[in-house]
Amino acid sequence: MIQQKKLNNDYGDNYPNSKKIFVTGSRPDIRVPMREIELTKTKKSNQSIQENPSVLVYDTSGPATDPNFEINLEKGLPKLRKNWITERDDIEEYVARGFQSGDDGLRQDENRKPFSEEKNVIRAKVGKNVTQMHYAKNGIITPEMEFIAIRENMGRAQKFSKVFCKSDHQSGILKESQSSAMRHPRHQHPGQSFGASIPEFITPEFVRDEVARGRAIIPANINHPELEPMIIGRNFLVKINGNIGNSAVTSNINEEVEKVQWATLWGADTIMDLSTGKNIHDTREWNIRNCPVPVGTVPIYQALQKVGDKPEDLTWEIFRDTLIEQAEQGVDYFTIHAGVLLRYVPITAQRVCGIVSRGGSIMAKWCVAHHKESFLYENFDEICEICSQYDVSLSLGDGLRPGAIADANDEAQLGELETLGELTKRAWEYDVQVMIEGPGHVPLQSIKDNMEWELNACHEAPFYTLGPLTTDVAPGYDHITSGIGAANIGWYGCAMLCYVTPKEHLGLPNKEDVKAGVITYKIAAHAADLAKGFPGVQIRDNALSKARFEFRWEDQFNLSLDPVTARLYHDATLPNEEAKTAHFCSMCGPKFCSMRISEDVRKYALENGYSIDQAIEKGMKEKSEEFSNQKSELYN
Amino acid sequence: MIQQKKLNNDYGDNYPNSKKIFVTGSRPDIRVPMREIELTKTKKSNQSIQENPSVLVYDTSGPATDPNFEINLEKGLPKLRKNWITERDDIEEYVARGFQSGDDGLRQDENRKPFSEEKNVIRAKVGKNVTQMHYAKNGIITPEMEFIAIRENMGRAQKFSKVFCKSDHQSGILKESQSSAMRHPRHQHPGQSFGASIPEFITPEFVRDEVARGRAIIPANINHPELEPMIIGRNFLVKINGNIGNSAVTSNINEEVEKVQWATLWGADTIMDLSTGKNIHDTREWNIRNCPVPVGTVPIYQALQKVGDKPEDLTWEIFRDTLIEQAEQGVDYFTIHAGVLLRYVPITAQRVCGIVSRGGSIMAKWCVAHHKESFLYENFDEICEICSQYDVSLSLGDGLRPGAIADANDEAQLGELETLGELTKRAWEYDVQVMIEGPGHVPLQSIKDNMEWELNACHEAPFYTLGPLTTDVAPGYDHITSGIGAANIGWYGCAMLCYVTPKEHLGLPNKEDVKAGVITYKIAAHAADLAKGFPGVQIRDNALSKARFEFRWEDQFNLSLDPVTARLYHDATLPNEEAKTAHFCSMCGPKFCSMRISEDVRKYALENGYSIDQAIEKGMKEKSEEFSNQKSELYN
Repeated sequence: MIQQKKLNNDYGDNYPNSKKIFVTGSRPDIRVPMREIELTKTKKSNQSIQENPSVLVYDTSGPATDPNFEINLEKGLPKLRKNWITERDDIEEYVARGFQSGDDGLRQDENRKPFSEEKNVIRAKVGKNVTQMHYAKNGIITPEMEFIAIRENMGRAQKFSKVFCKSDHQSGILKESQSSAMRHPRHQHPGQSFGASIPEFITPEFVRDEVARGRAIIPANINHPELEPMIIGRNFLVKINGNIGNSAVTSNINEEVEKVQWATLWGADTIMDLSTGKNIHDTREWNIRNCPVPVGTVPIYQALQKVGDKPEDLTWEIFRDTLIEQAEQGVDYFTIHAGVLLRYVPITAQRVCGIVSRGGSIMAKWCVAHHKESFLYENFDEICEICSQYDVSLSLGDGLRPGAIADANDEAQLGELETLGELTKRAWEYDVQVMIEGPGHVPLQSIKDNMEWELNACHEAPFYTLGPLTTDVAPGYDHITSGIGAANIGWYGCAMLCYVTPKEHLGLPNKEDVKAGVITYKIAAHAADLAKGFPGVQIRDNALSKARFEFRWEDQFNLSLDPVTARLYHDATLPNEEAKTAHFCSMCGPKFCSMRISEDVRKYALENGYSIDQAIEKGMKEKSEEFSNQKSELYN
Repeated sequence: MIQQKKLNNDYGDNYPNSKKIFVTGSRPDIRVPMREIELTKTKKSNQSIQENPSVLVYDTSGPATDPNFEINLEKGLPKLRKNWITERDDIEEYVARGFQSGDDGLRQDENRKPFSEEKNVIRAKVGKNVTQMHYAKNGIITPEMEFIAIRENMGRAQKFSKVFCKSDHQSGILKESQSSAMRHPRHQHPGQSFGASIPEFITPEFVRDEVARGRAIIPANINHPELEPMIIGRNFLVKINGNIGNSAVTSNINEEVEKVQWATLWGADTIMDLSTGKNIHDTREWNIRNCPVPVGTVPIYQALQKVGDKPEDLTWEIFRDTLIEQAEQGVDYFTIHAGVLLRYVPITAQRVCGIVSRGGSIMAKWCVAHHKESFLYENFDEICEICSQYDVSLSLGDGLRPGAIADANDEAQLGELETLGELTKRAWEYDVQVMIEGPGHVPLQSIKDNMEWELNACHEAPFYTLGPLTTDVAPGYDHITSGIGAANIGWYGCAMLCYVTPKEHLGLPNKEDVKAGVITYKIAAHAADLAKGFPGVQIRDNALSKARFEFRWEDQFNLSLDPVTARLYHDATLPNEEAKTAHFCSMCGPKFCSMRISEDVRKYALENGYSIDQAIEKGMKEKSEEFSNQKSELYN
């Protein structure tokens, strides 16, 4: 039915010279996948050879890139967490709700494409709570938490530390203590002022503590045992989300599963299935069964389909039933726009762009049509009860987020944010994990404010923002307008960045757009991690720069976020294979080369006995004294 | 010889519905070009029609897009500034040095392609100084300064203000006083702490004052009368530079002139001709004669060619002669790496990436080979004398800029910066205009420091940075890694951003790369201008967002930085012409639409008599009081 796709059972052409490795934890079934990028040796001018340690990077691609795993979309991915879940002895199988006629609303296909493999749906036993927050508050370190701790260290604590320590200082690869972030310690990342700082090593206990405090979440529905656990919180690596999903006008199941694989191959940490088209139930099932990262949804989209796309016909019962349908399938986090209160809605009438959140506008329409308070807000406790039975995390949606620079930071946005803070506390009473969604369109100078408002109003629950876009004037390039905002808010403490593709505002992203969005957001997240001074992240920058300096072109390509494109661009100017080992590039050409001159400089420094200290003594100190003396008269 | 290229004599397909207009100043020959984007009307649901005022934007494309001008590359552009220069009565024609055998070094072509049109080379009369700074210090407002004042207001002060005032508040287009930057006045742009702030309107006197103080420069060689004056300074619009130029391995004159036209069409405020290939003299001449924006060069590149690519064979005499050769041609600013002092060079030996500046490494090699202080530093006064005779601005190069995150902010970089500050003061004694070049590779958390160090060390001379790149891990996407840094440093006060194309580190940019670099940097500059609260810049964002909200698709495309791509992406999903007037998009499809629901909300708000004040009273105030009361217990 669904055609089995032939994929390379490894990183293939996408990540040359990479191999999947696993770092094992305290028990053999905690096997944390990482991608090891192997590097070539450096040939020194004196004929000596220097090893370059391989670089381990965070790997979101799941078993699809494991050569020991045979991809079969009909079977889905292996159930990594199954034993962890069952051995906690707090769950029960039950006769699940399953698929029901009408679940696809008016967009049911003539021919359903149900997922082939049988699965046993589980939930918490009566009186039990199966959320990671519940365990964390009770002092339990779950296998998920240990998995995450290892993962966040990106192997530094394990194999990599051994390899890394082999390299000497002369190699040019800096140890963490010399990273630029550490060199300027007076610039701590702003998030630190709000509580815990990032430790030198991420330990399982640190993971537990952050989850218990609500400062981080582990989206991990017990009905999605296939997922490789990950964490979202500002004292961890910045994460990115990729939106996929079919729409009323285009796309099908095959394409969607392919997009899941594609997005996670390039680095999406979570996926949101925002389908609004045909076969919404089955599409989601196929996606989840084949998805190694948490899957989020906006359940009101499906609920709306069930009532023929008429927001005013929505009821709490239909919505509640949709939550259970999706929780059974294994959705890991629900976006719920429970903060769109009746009293905020009229404020948006003055906006340039009104309400741009789809979920927000559905709820606004309902509130306005019935002149009643939102049924999501009124029934929030029951939503939390459902979530606690499956460990679905709540992503409290910003239904009134600004859709234009002109609308940023208005009363509707900030009023809703305060309501989300109130709901956060209510969810935490049920030990339900919560993150807070954020804008949208925000000018650069207000981004830090937005981060601080969120931490303040929402009790440090993790922030999850869409960009934000820093200008409205560049449709077609909104991955970039928003990538700028994303890097900044990530640095200020935002825990997850929802990608924006080049097609935003214009059309539906295809595979290339998905990749452009993911890579742009990997850049933003990495820039933010560097700025936060997150331990170990600069290793990759240093290794790539060393490769660049030494004209190890292949290593430079392979260490990049997108080796395919890097190679392609190089070959566009110098296509010959020899150029990839040549000690020059197309900028200066073969006769003169800046990089080569540095070799002469090193020789000169050695021969003349110049140390940095001497150089500083010779020039810098007198200069800086002179400068200090001048300072008083500078701005007269 | 050079084939005449047939260009559309207007904005053509690139900017549909745009037309060139001119705003005239105090004398008829001050005619400031602007691009007027005409918009369609809004059709309200009650059948009424609302006019949408056209939007005026800064236009760098020059006469090539003027329908009244016939393009002829062999003749070059009209000499806009000729009268302004001659009527000052401080210049003389003289027998110019012109082209001399050996100017192209080893890369002379068999067949030279000299520029066809005769031109009279001029310089300052003996005892005179023709720099804009000289005039400014003497209280003279030149036509160039008035031209710039009008240009920086983007027509707000002229025609546009009249059109703009027609629109009422309900239209959703905000007046300046309501721009988001103004709504949050506590976030003033950081530059303000260093002196003057941005006035509500840019006046000719303000331009003069900023130039006199050295806080802004007007690069405008008297031998480049074709240029349309522009200003670089942190109290003005953020500018962007596009690098072009052939290299030893590729490109030719035709392509280079085409790149000049292409880059300025999309918004490059200056061009640097970094040619290192064949026919370097003639290529530059063709470029300058056809370039409506200032042209910068790195004269040491050509000097190096004259000595067969051997840095150690360079002499002051050859360099000096090259400066005169290029000043006669009309180069508007010289990048000169006079801050690479012998004592700084050995410090770079410890770096991961050594010296990455081409000019920096040439000078480092020379210093090391001769074990002598840089001839640029030693002869700096004579350099200033030459610049003052032609009004060539100095762009003091950062030859020791970091080429990797690991090398950012080291002693070599900061030592050189202090020397550049010393040289700035020396140049100002000659009334020579100065800007300071900056890095390179800088992590996000250090960008503000870099800006402040520069203002501090270099007495507020304008900063001109290459990005900076905020991570090393994404070759192939370095327009984005650096666009993030560029937006930030522009916000913090950087005056000009040197673009980086997707090919950076990998190969030579083609036309598409040039466009990607320019658009990305227009985004960064615009995001920075918004964040600085520069008056008037948000008008375009607001107009585009209003068009988006009202489903005026064509207007949305036409208002964007790149209408071609915006339209292309829209058509990829919904290619039919009807979709461009449809009141829905591909995201939600025709049945349900967020944007349309806002119409219902507006009706509701009106019918229920809800004003913002009432809504706030109803909910917000009690919420915020409640919140204030909770605050004390938030972080326990």
